Amino acid sequence: MIAEIVSVGTELLMGQIVNTDAQHIARNLAPLGYICYYQVTVGDNAQRLTDAVRTALSRSDLVIFTGGLGPTEDDLTKETVAEALGLTCVPIPEQVEILKRQFRNAGWSMTPNNLKQASFPESAIILKNDHGTAPGCIMEANGKAAILLPGPPHELFPMFDHYVLPYLEKKGNTHLYSRFLKVTGVGESRLTYEIRDLIASQTNPTIAPYAKPGEVELRLTAKCATDEEGEALIAPVMQAILDHFGASVYSVNGEMLEEVCVKALNACSKTLSVYETGSGGLVCSALTSVPGHEAFLKEGRVICGYDRNISSSDPFGPEYALALARTARTLSGTYLGLSVGPLKTTENPGSRMTGTAYIAISDGESDKTVVLNMMGSPERLRRICTLKAMDLLRRKCLNQPLDIDII
Amino acid sequence: MIAEIVSVGTELLMGQIVNTDAQHIARNLAPLGYICYYQVTVGDNAQRLTDAVRTALSRSDLVIFTGGLGPTEDDLTKETVAEALGLTCVPIPEQVEILKRQFRNAGWSMTPNNLKQASFPESAIILKNDHGTAPGCIMEANGKAAILLPGPPHELFPMFDHYVLPYLEKKGNTHLYSRFLKVTGVGESRLTYEIRDLIASQTNPTIAPYAKPGEVELRLTAKCATDEEGEALIAPVMQAILDHFGASVYSVNGEMLEEVCVKALNACSKTLSVYETGSGGLVCSALTSVPGHEAFLKEGRVICGYDRNISSSDPFGPEYALALARTARTLSGTYLGLSVGPLKTTENPGSRMTGTAYIAISDGESDKTVVLNMMGSPERLRRICTLKAMDLLRRKCLNQPLDIDII
Repeated sequence: MIAEIVSVGTELLMGQIVNTDAQHIARNLAPLGYICYYQVTVGDNAQRLTDAVRTALSRSDLVIFTGGLGPTEDDLTKETVAEALGLTCVPIPEQVEILKRQFRNAGWSMTPNNLKQASFPESAIILKNDHGTAPGCIMEANGKAAILLPGPPHELFPMFDHYVLPYLEKKGNTHLYSRFLKVTGVGESRLTYEIRDLIASQTNPTIAPYAKPGEVELRLTAKCATDEEGEALIAPVMQAILDHFGASVYSVNGEMLEEVCVKALNACSKTLSVYETGSGGLVCSALTSVPGHEAFLKEGRVICGYDRNISSSDPFGPEYALALARTARTLSGTYLGLSVGPLKTTENPGSRMTGTAYIAISDGESDKTVVLNMMGSPERLRRICTLKAMDLLRRKCLNQPLDIDII
Repeated sequence: MIAEIVSVGTELLMGQIVNTDAQHIARNLAPLGYICYYQVTVGDNAQRLTDAVRTALSRSDLVIFTGGLGPTEDDLTKETVAEALGLTCVPIPEQVEILKRQFRNAGWSMTPNNLKQASFPESAIILKNDHGTAPGCIMEANGKAAILLPGPPHELFPMFDHYVLPYLEKKGNTHLYSRFLKVTGVGESRLTYEIRDLIASQTNPTIAPYAKPGEVELRLTAKCATDEEGEALIAPVMQAILDHFGASVYSVNGEMLEEVCVKALNACSKTLSVYETGSGGLVCSALTSVPGHEAFLKEGRVICGYDRNISSSDPFGPEYALALARTARTLSGTYLGLSVGPLKTTENPGSRMTGTAYIAISDGESDKTVVLNMMGSPERLRRICTLKAMDLLRRKCLNQPLDIDII
C-alpha cells in the first residue's frame, strides 16, 4: 500500500522547527508494509494546500497529514481534506461536549471558532488528543484513507502510537522485514562497487547502503508475510555479503561498534585499559556509553601530546603507539591494552586534509600495530581513529584477522 | 523569489534520519527574502525523482536539492536535474584531478564509479566539499537556478554556509549580518520567557533561539547594507541580553564551549588535569579537539566505576567528586584539577529518566563542587555533565561566579 506524509505548517517552511513528526511516522510506516514514495511540506495557504491534498490523494492510498488542526482561521487541513474526499464537516455533539468540558475545567472561555475543532465528517473515526485540545481523525472515502494529526510532536507522537498504529496494523496487508549490516574497513564507493551486481539484481530483499565516517550501514529489506519469511528471503543475500566482506561486517543487527566491543570483551572475559592521544578520549567515551562496560574496562587515559616516559621513539610512529598499548596493560594490570597514537595531520591546499595515526593492541604475547591513512576534517579523522581502534579490539577479542583494510 | 527544497534519499522516506538539512536551508532562506512554498522528499527512484525535479522547476525559481550526489548507481540527482534543465554532465578535468589527488593522498585506489563525482554540466558553478568527496554545484538555465548539495549534514551545513549563502545573498540582493550568542545555565523555555518582550519587539535584528542539551544558541540577524551597519544594529540588542544573563553567556561569536575553555586557560596561563567518570571521556575529547590545548591540558583520566584509592566516601556524593578533582591536580602536578563524578540515574515509569552528578574544580586553595540535577536520555545526561564541567572551568579561569544555575 502506497503512503504519503503531508506536513502542513509555515513554521516548517520557515525552518523554525525540524520535522520530527514526519520521521516518527515514516519509521513506523515502513515496518508495517506501507511504502512511502513522497513526503511533502506545505504552508497554511488554501490553494496550495488544496493542490497538495489532491495530488497526494491521487497518487497514494493512505495520506497522513500533520498540523493545521487548530481553531484559527489559518487551520485549514480538516476542511480541505474533507472537501477533496467529497465529505462535509459538521459539529459532532459528543465532541462539542468534550470541548466545553475541557474549557470549563481549565477556566477558559470558548470563542466561536473553537467549535471548529469539534466538527468532523459524520463517518470519520475521531482520535482522542490526550495532550492537547485538537482531536485527530481518520477519513475514508473512494478507497482512500486520510489520517489527520495535530502538529506539536508532544501531541502527535502519543496519538500516533496509541490510536493510529493499531489502525494501520489492521489495515496493512503486507509486511516488511529489515536487517541492518554494519561494515567498517571498506569505504562506501568501494563497497557498493564490489557488490554492485548483487545490489542491481536484488528486488526482494532490496539493499541500500548508508555511509557514515569510517563505516557503512547496509539495509536489507524484504517484502514478506511474516518475519520468518523475511529472514528466509534475506539470509542468502546476507550470507553473500558476509562471504565477500568477512570480518569487516561487525554487526548484522544494527548494533553500534561500541556495543559489539563490550559484548566481545564479555565473550572472551578479558579486562582492558585504553591510552589514547589522537582520539582524545572518544574511545573511552564510546565504550563507557555501553551498560556493562565497568566489568571489563578498567582504566582510560587521555595522553595529551608526547609523553617521553612512555617511549622516546617518534610519537607519530608505530613503536610509540605500541608502547602506549603496552604501558596501558602493564600499569593498569589488565589483560589487554589498546592505544591510539598521536594524529599527524597535513593540510593539502586545494584538497582535503589528510591524517595518519597508529593504533595498537597488546596482550603481552602477540601485539599488533596498524597504520591508518585518513582524509577529511579533524573531527572526521578523530572519529575514524576511534572506530578503527574499537574494530581492532573487536577483532582481537573474537580471534579475527587483525589486518584492518584501508578505508 | 520563490524557492523550494527537494530532499532526495530513501533513508528520509524510511524515517531512519530526521531532515535537519531542510530545516537548516529553510531557516536561512527566509531572512534572505526567498519565499518557500514547498518542501518535498523523494527517494532514489529515477521516475519519481524526475517528476519531482520537473514539478519543482516549473513552480519555483530556485530549487535546492539535498542528497543523491554520491558515487553509486543510486545517486541520480545531478544527472536528473541537469537533464531537466537541458544540460549534460561531462567529466570536468580540474575536478578529476582533485579527486585523483584526494585518493592518492589517502593511499586509496579509485573505482570507475568515483569518476561520476567529477562530472558536471560545463556551465555549472562547482561547490567545494570540505568534509567529503562529493562536490555540490549550482546549475542555471532558462531563468531557473538549481543548487545541489550532499546529503550528510556535516558536509551540507558548512558547504551551505560558506559557498551557498554568499551566492544567495548576491542573487537575492539582500545582505545579512549575524551574531551567535551561546548561553549555558538557562533552559530554553526560561530564556525565551525572560526575554519574550525583547524577542517580540525586534524586527531588525531578529532574535531566534535554538536549544541544544544544556545550552541555547541565540542567533541575532540584521538586514543591512554592510557588516558595520549590521554590527551597529545588533550591538544594543546584544548588550541587553548580556546585561540580563551575565556570565551565563559564554560566547558572542558562536564559539563552542571547549574553544572558550582553551582560550580561558591560555588567558590565565594555568595547567589542568581532568578526571571524569559520569562523562566517560567526553570532557577530554571536547578539550583535545581544540588546537592549542596541549600547552595547558596535561592529563585526562577516565575512572571507570568507583575507585576507593581516590576516596572512600559515597561515589555519588560531593566529597568523592571533590576528591577526584584534588587527586587530578596533585597526581598530575597541575594548577587546576577538574572532575565529573559518577552519574546516578533513576528510571521514572511514565516519565523521563532523571540523573544526578557532582562536578568539582580544585586549585588547592578554593575548591568548588556543584550538583547537577538533570533529565533526559543517558546520552543527554552525559552531554550536560560535559558541558557543565567545562562551564565550571571557564568561570574559574575567568574569575566569574561559580554558582551554575540549575537547568
